[in-house]
Amino acid sequence: MKKILFATTALVASAGVVAADVSFSGYGRFGAISIDNPTPTPDVEGIYTRIRLQIDMTTEADNGLTFGARLRHQATSVNGAGYGGGFNGARFFARAGGLEIGVGNTFGAIEFMPGVYMSTQSADIGLSGLGFHSLVTNTAQKGYFNWDAYSSGGVGRDGVEVMYSAGDFGGHLSYSNTGGVERTGLHVRYAFNDWTVALGYQDSSLATEDKIVLTVGGNVGPAKLGLAYADNDGIGKFALTAGVEVGAATRVDAYISSEDGAAGGEAYGLGVSHSLGGGASLEGGFTRNDITDVNAVDLGIRFNF
Amino acid sequence: MKKILFATTALVASAGVVAADVSFSGYGRFGAISIDNPTPTPDVEGIYTRIRLQIDMTTEADNGLTFGARLRHQATSVNGAGYGGGFNGARFFARAGGLEIGVGNTFGAIEFMPGVYMSTQSADIGLSGLGFHSLVTNTAQKGYFNWDAYSSGGVGRDGVEVMYSAGDFGGHLSYSNTGGVERTGLHVRYAFNDWTVALGYQDSSLATEDKIVLTVGGNVGPAKLGLAYADNDGIGKFALTAGVEVGAATRVDAYISSEDGAAGGEAYGLGVSHSLGGGASLEGGFTRNDITDVNAVDLGIRFNF
Amino acid sequence: MKKILFATTALVASAGVVAADVSFSGYGRFGAISIDNPTPTPDVEGIYTRIRLQIDMTTEADNGLTFGARLRHQATSVNGAGYGGGFNGARFFARAGGLEIGVGNTFGAIEFMPGVYMSTQSADIGLSGLGFHSLVTNTAQKGYFNWDAYSSGGVGRDGVEVMYSAGDFGGHLSYSNTGGVERTGLHVRYAFNDWTVALGYQDSSLATEDKIVLTVGGNVGPAKLGLAYADNDGIGKFALTAGVEVGAATRVDAYISSEDGAAGGEAYGLGVSHSLGGGASLEGGFTRNDITDVNAVDLGIRFNF
Repeated sequence: MKKILFATTALVASAGVVAADVSFSGYGRFGAISIDNPTPTPDVEGIYTRIRLQIDMTTEADNGLTFGARLRHQATSVNGAGYGGGFNGARFFARAGGLEIGVGNTFGAIEFMPGVYMSTQSADIGLSGLGFHSLVTNTAQKGYFNWDAYSSGGVGRDGVEVMYSAGDFGGHLSYSNTGGVERTGLHVRYAFNDWTVALGYQDSSLATEDKIVLTVGGNVGPAKLGLAYADNDGIGKFALTAGVEVGAATRVDAYISSEDGAAGGEAYGLGVSHSLGGGASLEGGFTRNDITDVNAVDLGIRFNF
Repeated sequence: MKKILFATTALVASAGVVAADVSFSGYGRFGAISIDNPTPTPDVEGIYTRIRLQIDMTTEADNGLTFGARLRHQATSVNGAGYGGGFNGARFFARAGGLEIGVGNTFGAIEFMPGVYMSTQSADIGLSGLGFHSLVTNTAQKGYFNWDAYSSGGVGRDGVEVMYSAGDFGGHLSYSNTGGVERTGLHVRYAFNDWTVALGYQDSSLATEDKIVLTVGGNVGPAKLGLAYADNDGIGKFALTAGVEVGAATRVDAYISSEDGAAGGEAYGLGVSHSLGGGASLEGGFTRNDITDVNAVDLGIRFNF
Repeated sequence: MKKILFATTALVASAGVVAADVSFSGYGRFGAISIDNPTPTPDVEGIYTRIRLQIDMTTEADNGLTFGARLRHQATSVNGAGYGGGFNGARFFARAGGLEIGVGNTFGAIEFMPGVYMSTQSADIGLSGLGFHSLVTNTAQKGYFNWDAYSSGGVGRDGVEVMYSAGDFGGHLSYSNTGGVERTGLHVRYAFNDWTVALGYQDSSLATEDKIVLTVGGNVGPAKLGLAYADNDGIGKFALTAGVEVGAATRVDAYISSEDGAAGGEAYGLGVSHSLGGGASLEGGFTRNDITDVNAVDLGIRFNF
C-alpha cells in the first residue's frame, strides 16, 4: 500500500555515508456522496473526491537516531468546492528506539490513542468517514474534533509531544498552547494476546474540551471488536464497533454510538470494503445520526499509493 | 555535488506485491515575449517564464485495473507577475484496457480531441502559444477556452468523463455542472493510414458555448497537415495548420485561421522549433490577429523533464 | 547530504533518450528561540521550526548543455505563526561548462558573493541565523537584505543573471527591474592557496541600496577566518568572522561587526555546531546587537536531507 521511493546514499565526499531520503505516499478517493439533512438545511449530493500526497523527509544520524519531518498536501471536494491549495504545517521529530519527540503540527495523544478511530480505510464508515460519529470523543453537546491532531489542510497546533513504546506498553503525551487554547493530552496503552486497552485524558483551557477516554479492542474469531467510552466534560458517550471479514476480499464494519445528556442520542453506521488488490478498494457506507436527524451514504474507490 | 541515483517502489509485506508509484514530470520554459497591442492598450514586453511540475500517482489493482490521480503545480510569469502558488485540483481515474473513467479536474472531450491543438511543444505557435488563435474553438465573438479542460492553475470543473479507444477508433464523453454552467462534450475519432479524422460536439447551458467541431490531420511527405472547422454557436471558424521538418533538428510550423461573422477576420502564425537534445529545444514564433490588431512574438528555451 | 530521486519522466516519443531528472533536497530545523527586545517591544520566546523542501528539475541537452529550474517550499514558524503555503517563484537556468545564465527568481550577485554569509549551517550564528547581523551588507541605517536573492517564500525579483567561473576566477552579474526598483549587482572573486578574495558592487535605483563590498576569507591552521567590509550608500560596516573545529564533531563560530555613522554600533555572535552524523547537527547560538539593544539565543536540531 505504501510507496517508498528508495533513497539514495548521497555521496558528498566530506560527509561520509549519508542515509537521507524523501518518500512520497498518500491516497486518492473518488465517488458519490449523499447527505440527507433535516429541513431547512439543504441536502448535499454529488461527486466526492479527496487527494492526499504525503512527503516524509528523514535522515539517520549516528547511534540509531532518526530525524525527520512530514509535509502533506490534501484537498477534499464535494461538487467542486474545497480543492487546490498548498502544503500544511510540518511535523518534525527525533526518534531513538521506542522514544519519539515531535514538534510542530503534532499527531496528538488523543488522536493517536488506539480504539478512538475505527480500523477501516477511512478510519470510520464508508468512503469518506461519513461524519465520524463513531468517535466517543465527538459529541453533539461538547463539540467534534476538539483535541490536538495532525492537521492535513492547515498549520496545526504547533505543539510538542513525546511518544514511547516498549514491548506491549505504550504512552503518548502531547501539549500545545496556541490561539488562546492550551491543551495537554495523554494516553497509555497495553496489549495482551489479541487485545489492546487504552486510557486517555485531555485537559484543556476550554473546559468543554476536557476528556477521559477508555477503549478496549481485539479479535473474536473472524471479527474485530471495539468498545469505547469517553467522558467529555460531563457528557458520556460510548461506542461499539465491529468488523467482520465476510469473504476473501470483503469486509463489513458497523458501529453504534450513544451520547447521554439532555440533547444526546444515538448514531449508527454500516459499511463495506471490497479489496480490488494493489491497495485499491471499493468503499461504501451508510450512517444515521438520531441527534441531528442526518442520514448519509457514500460509495466509491479508494487507492493507496 | 549532484549525483543521479535511482528510485524504486518498495513493498509492504502484508500487502503482497503492490505496484504503486508516484512520478514527476513537467517542463520549464523561459525567454522573452513581446505583444504589440493597438492603442490605447499598453504593449507587453519582457521576460516570460513558466514552470510545470506534474505529479502522477497510480496503483495497479488486480485484473488489469489501474487507479490514479494527477496533480500539477504550474506558474507562469510575464515580468514577475503571476508566480508562486500551490497545487491545482486533482483528476482521478480508473482505467481498464481501452476504457478510462475520470473524475474531478477532468481532461474534457473537446480539449482532448485530435486536431484542436497543434502538435508542437506549446500546442500552438512559439514558446508560449502566443494567444492560441489557431484553435477553431476559440473565437473573438463567442469566447476563448469556453470548454472543459484540465486546469493547470485552478480547481477545474469537477466533472466526470469516459474515454474509450479500440484499435483505430476512439471516443471521449465529458460532463460537468459547476458554477451555474452545465457542459456536455463528446468527440469520436478514427485513424486510417497516416490520417486521423475527428468529430466533436459541446452542448452547454450557456448557448454561446455550443460547438460542433470537425478536424482532419495527417502526413504528406515531410509535412504534417491539419484542417479544422468549428461552428461556435453560429460563428464558423476554420484553420489550416502545417508543420515541416526542415532539417535534422529543426521544424517550422504555421497556421492560418479565419473566423466568419460581422466581427470576424483572420489570424496567422509562424514558428520554429530547434531541438537541442535531451528534451530541450529553442522555440520561437510570431502571430498576428487581424481581428484584434495584435502582433505577438516570443523566443526562448523549453526543456521537458 | 543531498538526496536525489530519479523521476519517471513522461517522454516525448520523438525525443529519444532523455536524461531528465527531478531531485528533492532540503532541511528541517526545530528547537527553541528567545529574543530579548528593549522595552516596549515584546520579547519573543517559544518553539522555532522551519521546513525547506527544494525541487531541482534538470535535463541534459547535447553538447554539454544543461537546462533546469528550481522550486522551493519553505515555511518558518515561531510559536505557530507563519506556516503552510505553496511554492516560491522558480529560477530557470541554462548552463554550459563554467557559464550559467539564470532567469526568474535569480540567485543574485551580492547574495552569492563569497564572504558575505558565514560558512555555517544557518549561514550565520545559531539554529536560525539570529538576525544576520554579521553581514556587512545589512545595516541599521540603510536596511537589511536590500539586494537581489533567491526568495524562498515569495516570487523573487524575476531578474536575469550570468555566472562564470574559470579555474581560480569567478564572476557573477545580476539584473532586475520589478516593483519600481532596478538593481544591477556584480561580484568578482579570486582564489589563491587557501584564500578567496571577492569584490562586489550593487547599483540600485534606490540610492540607499548602493553598495561596494570587499571580502577576504581563508584558513589559518584549524581556524577559518573572514574579514569583510561594505560601503552601504556611505555607511561603512566591517565584520570579522571566525570558525574553529574544537573537536572531532564540534565547531565554534563567532563574529564581531561594526557599523559606522551617527546611529551605528557593534554586534556580536557566538555559536556552536555539534555534528550528529547523517547530515544532522545540534545548533545553538547567541547574538547581541548594540544598535538595537536586542539579545537573541536559540538552540535546536538541524537535519539535511
